[in-house]
Amino acid sequence: MTDRLTGERLVDDMTEAERDRARRVEAVLPELRAAAVKADQEGSFPIGHVALLREAGLLGLVVPQEYGGLGGTLRDLAAATFAMGTACPSTALAFFFHNTSASRGLLPLEAIEAGLFEDDEIPVVRAFAEKVLTRMASGVWLANFASESVKSSTANIAIATTARRTEGGWLLDGEKSFGCATGVADYYLTTAKLDGYDTAEGLVTFFVPREAAGVSSRAPWDGLGMRASANNGIRLDQVFIPEDEALTVPGAFTRMLQMSRGSFVGNQLAISAAYTGCAQNVYDVTIEQLTRKTFADTGRPIASSPMHQQIIGEMTVQLETAFLWLRRQLLLETSEPPLRPKQEVFRQWRMGKGSVTEACFQVALGAFKASGTSGASMSSTAGRALRDLAMGLVMTFPAERGRLEVAQLVTQAKENALFATVEKP
Amino acid sequence: MTDRLTGERLVDDMTEAERDRARRVEAVLPELRAAAVKADQEGSFPIGHVALLREAGLLGLVVPQEYGGLGGTLRDLAAATFAMGTACPSTALAFFFHNTSASRGLLPLEAIEAGLFEDDEIPVVRAFAEKVLTRMASGVWLANFASESVKSSTANIAIATTARRTEGGWLLDGEKSFGCATGVADYYLTTAKLDGYDTAEGLVTFFVPREAAGVSSRAPWDGLGMRASANNGIRLDQVFIPEDEALTVPGAFTRMLQMSRGSFVGNQLAISAAYTGCAQNVYDVTIEQLTRKTFADTGRPIASSPMHQQIIGEMTVQLETAFLWLRRQLLLETSEPPLRPKQEVFRQWRMGKGSVTEACFQVALGAFKASGTSGASMSSTAGRALRDLAMGLVMTFPAERGRLEVAQLVTQAKENALFATVEKP
Amino acid sequence: MTDRLTGERLVDDMTEAERDRARRVEAVLPELRAAAVKADQEGSFPIGHVALLREAGLLGLVVPQEYGGLGGTLRDLAAATFAMGTACPSTALAFFFHNTSASRGLLPLEAIEAGLFEDDEIPVVRAFAEKVLTRMASGVWLANFASESVKSSTANIAIATTARRTEGGWLLDGEKSFGCATGVADYYLTTAKLDGYDTAEGLVTFFVPREAAGVSSRAPWDGLGMRASANNGIRLDQVFIPEDEALTVPGAFTRMLQMSRGSFVGNQLAISAAYTGCAQNVYDVTIEQLTRKTFADTGRPIASSPMHQQIIGEMTVQLETAFLWLRRQLLLETSEPPLRPKQEVFRQWRMGKGSVTEACFQVALGAFKASGTSGASMSSTAGRALRDLAMGLVMTFPAERGRLEVAQLVTQAKENALFATVEKP
Amino acid sequence: MTDRLTGERLVDDMTEAERDRARRVEAVLPELRAAAVKADQEGSFPIGHVALLREAGLLGLVVPQEYGGLGGTLRDLAAATFAMGTACPSTALAFFFHNTSASRGLLPLEAIEAGLFEDDEIPVVRAFAEKVLTRMASGVWLANFASESVKSSTANIAIATTARRTEGGWLLDGEKSFGCATGVADYYLTTAKLDGYDTAEGLVTFFVPREAAGVSSRAPWDGLGMRASANNGIRLDQVFIPEDEALTVPGAFTRMLQMSRGSFVGNQLAISAAYTGCAQNVYDVTIEQLTRKTFADTGRPIASSPMHQQIIGEMTVQLETAFLWLRRQLLLETSEPPLRPKQEVFRQWRMGKGSVTEACFQVALGAFKASGTSGASMSSTAGRALRDLAMGLVMTFPAERGRLEVAQLVTQAKENALFATVEKP
Repeated sequence: MTDRLTGERLVDDMTEAERDRARRVEAVLPELRAAAVKADQEGSFPIGHVALLREAGLLGLVVPQEYGGLGGTLRDLAAATFAMGTACPSTALAFFFHNTSASRGLLPLEAIEAGLFEDDEIPVVRAFAEKVLTRMASGVWLANFASESVKSSTANIAIATTARRTEGGWLLDGEKSFGCATGVADYYLTTAKLDGYDTAEGLVTFFVPREAAGVSSRAPWDGLGMRASANNGIRLDQVFIPEDEALTVPGAFTRMLQMSRGSFVGNQLAISAAYTGCAQNVYDVTIEQLTRKTFADTGRPIASSPMHQQIIGEMTVQLETAFLWLRRQLLLETSEPPLRPKQEVFRQWRMGKGSVTEACFQVALGAFKASGTSGASMSSTAGRALRDLAMGLVMTFPAERGRLEVAQLVTQAKENALFATVEKP
Repeated sequence: MTDRLTGERLVDDMTEAERDRARRVEAVLPELRAAAVKADQEGSFPIGHVALLREAGLLGLVVPQEYGGLGGTLRDLAAATFAMGTACPSTALAFFFHNTSASRGLLPLEAIEAGLFEDDEIPVVRAFAEKVLTRMASGVWLANFASESVKSSTANIAIATTARRTEGGWLLDGEKSFGCATGVADYYLTTAKLDGYDTAEGLVTFFVPREAAGVSSRAPWDGLGMRASANNGIRLDQVFIPEDEALTVPGAFTRMLQMSRGSFVGNQLAISAAYTGCAQNVYDVTIEQLTRKTFADTGRPIASSPMHQQIIGEMTVQLETAFLWLRRQLLLETSEPPLRPKQEVFRQWRMGKGSVTEACFQVALGAFKASGTSGASMSSTAGRALRDLAMGLVMTFPAERGRLEVAQLVTQAKENALFATVEKP
Repeated sequence: MTDRLTGERLVDDMTEAERDRARRVEAVLPELRAAAVKADQEGSFPIGHVALLREAGLLGLVVPQEYGGLGGTLRDLAAATFAMGTACPSTALAFFFHNTSASRGLLPLEAIEAGLFEDDEIPVVRAFAEKVLTRMASGVWLANFASESVKSSTANIAIATTARRTEGGWLLDGEKSFGCATGVADYYLTTAKLDGYDTAEGLVTFFVPREAAGVSSRAPWDGLGMRASANNGIRLDQVFIPEDEALTVPGAFTRMLQMSRGSFVGNQLAISAAYTGCAQNVYDVTIEQLTRKTFADTGRPIASSPMHQQIIGEMTVQLETAFLWLRRQLLLETSEPPLRPKQEVFRQWRMGKGSVTEACFQVALGAFKASGTSGASMSSTAGRALRDLAMGLVMTFPAERGRLEVAQLVTQAKENALFATVEKP
Repeated sequence: MTDRLTGERLVDDMTEAERDRARRVEAVLPELRAAAVKADQEGSFPIGHVALLREAGLLGLVVPQEYGGLGGTLRDLAAATFAMGTACPSTALAFFFHNTSASRGLLPLEAIEAGLFEDDEIPVVRAFAEKVLTRMASGVWLANFASESVKSSTANIAIATTARRTEGGWLLDGEKSFGCATGVADYYLTTAKLDGYDTAEGLVTFFVPREAAGVSSRAPWDGLGMRASANNGIRLDQVFIPEDEALTVPGAFTRMLQMSRGSFVGNQLAISAAYTGCAQNVYDVTIEQLTRKTFADTGRPIASSPMHQQIIGEMTVQLETAFLWLRRQLLLETSEPPLRPKQEVFRQWRMGKGSVTEACFQVALGAFKASGTSGASMSSTAGRALRDLAMGLVMTFPAERGRLEVAQLVTQAKENALFATVEKP
């Protein structure tokens, strides 16, 4: 197995076609790795990576071949973000957000197949969906901007950005707090709510060109980690978007989500795969360093000290734990026919997201401790991993929240079932 | 999925043939469950279970059909011990140890196929192997006695029981400290060392009839948990075993072990599946109780309190963690062709054994806390599970030891590689 | 420091008078220790211990000398329950509950001093208080029965037992779910609510003679641990208690509680000291065993293996953690003048109770793992400690609940403070 | 208690003289706090702090009044580093290292009193000791440089810097890897070994002026945290130090250490107090923010969500845990007469150092999670605390190592005791 590809650490049963696509990823890793330290220090996305990934064909990784893409699935995406995560976690994260845009093409097409759209809606939905896919396949970078800074006690994401009708299109106003590839992507795929709606039925989607009038980047984002992902966010001030650059059919968003096999748009695990790649790298580098460096008095490797043995054992278990949750989720979201019902797949990820990112953070923490003061710098592998993986703890939701949501799912199902027995006929 | 079998909680991609075998297991669960509390209280194996399992054909569960068995694999065994673990963990454990005897038939046959035996050895090895399998398939209970009480700092198991040549057979002397179905099994499949050998080459195997002269049960075993598994252990005092009831070819044991796909004889994960079944049961019962019982003042379920929600969320993650390690190990040990190299399969289980049993214990601990003082009795589901699952922490080796062994595997491979670079040509 | 008393492990700055009292405790430890295993096995309180402790003068340990007691304080009580916990945790627990009865004498007297009672109430309050104290000092065992099985979402303890007026006294009806020394104590000091009251103002206290008509013990309590504490609980069926054997002044209970310096009646930490004694003992015994037993191959102590070193290090930290919380709480509840305000003392114990008992349980769990299968029996020191210390996790409230209560205290104080800023003048 | 000083959070039983000294600390906190963010960003020690602390008299905080200092003890130092840690952890750390220099004055003087020096050694030892103390009291900043980058498997610190005799003094050669106030301190108090010695007997101490010929700062230190502590380290290239600026009596160092009441020079806990101050600050700021910010839909504070309540409860326990270990250690190292034997004080700190810094890190981690993505920046309070407190995990030794050392202390003492029983008379 000497030619094992990096992504096969995670997806260890690749088909030959998947290996072909994974080789494209493998080929860009050296360049990603070479740029990673400086990109982190400067907190800036290495702009050359756009062309690098485009030329490797990777911007269309998960776009079906009929739309010009490579035809990969979530398995390819997870393997790719994992592999890139070993080289430059920030790039892996930004690459993920580009790819998740494909769901705005794939899910609507599936929803059409499933009969969720009326005949008169289908042409416009299909046109928008295909535009998403063909653009991606042609080498366009589509950033994906959903999150805003307002908090709701009940929903994961609350949208305040508003779209108002105007002559020939729409006017957008709002602010997106978080989204990779700010100032880098060709388009920001932007979620807004139709003026006058107050439910998720009013959620709609726009292609916002990076350079459109009224679009501005927010102040540089000084993140603790994942600093080279250009996560500033944007402001939209009366931004005009023409009719055919939008999907504004009411309820299209919620109908599309019904087709997802996991949380949200159904591929969140590939974010966690990026973090796991980072954990894999800090693990490998740390083991290598600790087995190479020796004690001055005994000549034995540093790794052989009882303290290091304890920490290394624990790191190894933590890293494997991340893999286990990821592989299970990947199986649940890609098996045909579905191995388990959708609500179980959903519930699993409420646990899995936090379990993966906590485990990855523990790997970094172990590496940090094992490396001692000499490795405790801002730019050492351990220092960077600790910062990058800390971001994983808070992105989307912390593990504690996921567990509480699962408890509610578990006990409310039971509560309902029990209530049902006392209901009158 | 209304007819989901208990074992499918663990092995959720059963074939139809596997489901057929699993239905035999399902059928005996009510009887196991009914006897469990009393068996635990009295610390005695419910003797009727022998006939119950024999009549269900389950004593031959993993014996190939050509030898009269049901033709199950490790997947069936894990599903079975898991399912039985939900009803009576002690019985699940004892049933596992019977089944693991099959390895003394299957592995030698594989070793013959692999060319590990000389022509003149083959007939005697084959005869013994087939005797193991046909006896099991015919309804004979074969307890499996390896462990002794002496400790070695380097090996997991140290054997001091000795076999000496005598007219027409062998004389055995020694003491086995731990082994299910003491006084219950028809035969104790017993490992000893040939007189005069001091390495594993001298390890040999005997059928010791339960009632043979010189065989005695040790004092009743007052275990903290798994109390109904008849784990007393035996004493062998000049026990005569005829020639053809033994496999005494030097090196047969070690050659057989080479065929194993995991640790030891290659199915240890099915022990952990028994513990996981216990964890599944205490989880289910606790959730059911906490959602049914209500607070006197609000009428809301006890489960809905913030403390209970936190504990339930954590229990759910722990239970799933046990499943993840088990399913991965099962995949690694049954995939054809092998998904990963043997040393990785082996290393995985050094982590997996402890990870499963720690996670299961945490489930019991959560259930115990969530149930409060009223559930804190010796025979409550939570009290029994806490005791039974504590046994899992120490059986074979604790999680801490497994992690330290993994650290050694990880760093010594590296050390060796590094040493190699400084060797002279 | 060769003559260091057991209780000085916890209270390491004893005065000479305290050491005198601690020597009385030290003297009974051998007898407690000798009876502990059998008492646990049988689940019965060793009845001879009543006379043993009475004759040692210990039933009046915390009764002021002016009432015939030894004049000890909470420091003496904590040192005593700790010391007894090293020998027989059940006896330590039952002894604690007897001693906590003293609060029904001491706190009312303090409340009189503080001017919380009216002139006409004082004689009856004082008479009852002095009766509590003089009885204890004279060698009467006063069990303390408060807990009932009904749950409230808001209060720690809910009382449903009712006292109704009758000729010359009161009639009690109800059931007490938990209370040491059932069938052993001379009197059950029993909390009930006055018929017609629905707030804590109606809580009143009675001396219920063990053999009074209408008093019965509930079914034997089959606890997981602390099995020799006679914790069955009692039923009260129209039990007549004469006027002068009760304190029925409305509001006396709540006014008395105002004088407490900690949670409830202010000495809960001494329960946790009993558990810590148990942890100390399992720690000492385990270290002794592991350093005495050796590996067969190297002759080195079992304790020296890397796994054992790791576990021992962690056990040592956990044991010390229990001490730290206990000593701090003891300081906060006994310092004159008070070191910190009462609400901080209260808040500290919401954290401390769970922190002590979790740490103690971890000591037992470490000892259990370190002792291996051979120590995993029902009656081994590790097995008993695991069971006894599991009880500590659920008694009063689990650590999780204490932490959530603290969070509420921390954030509501802040919320209130913030609300205060928007209040109109 | 409205005028409670910051340092009283830790040392809550200050004398009036201690409060007077603590007020000097309190007065500089606003300036420290104001400079902290920028100093962290730039990774540079705010040079004005030297004058600030000098003018406040704090450079002589722990110097006896007879030498011109403020007469504080370890209690004052711990309270001071804690208080400064709430404002600027880097400054607190650097201030600690200045103060620990006082041990080079105080311990030799105590050793003279204890009769550890010969008559002919006393004058030179006393002269050096008094020079240390009077310089500190006069406002000279004495950095303390001991650590080097070479690792030994047995010792905490290994010294390779060498002092060779030369005309009128000594020539120093070597490199110090870690030491606060590089390029800032007036003198680097430097440990070296006498040429020709290979044991700790040869350790000697020098005043190295910051601007002496041959002294250079190493490259800027890009630490993950504690970035404003000027921790570059120095190179010494044939640096000449005159006779009277050195203490070169062989064995003076080791004799001095005998007088220490704790680890090393006996005040390491004050470093951990600096970290605990950082933890206190991130705790306070986070609670304040989470109770002030509200959910858009309910208007309830963010702090009130179940997830936040869980995290806040856990943070509160962790912060208190740090306090408990610190206060105990402080008591053990300052009580007169000593409460416990020296070896126990030493052992306690092997546990305490790691326990404090792990607990502090957990506070930061909780704050980080509770603050979400919006607080996950490089310069937010949570982001800085996570970085600063990560340094605490590796400084001196990680918690894992401390626990393993304790295990050795615990089991070897036992081993020795057991060996003793088999010794021949």
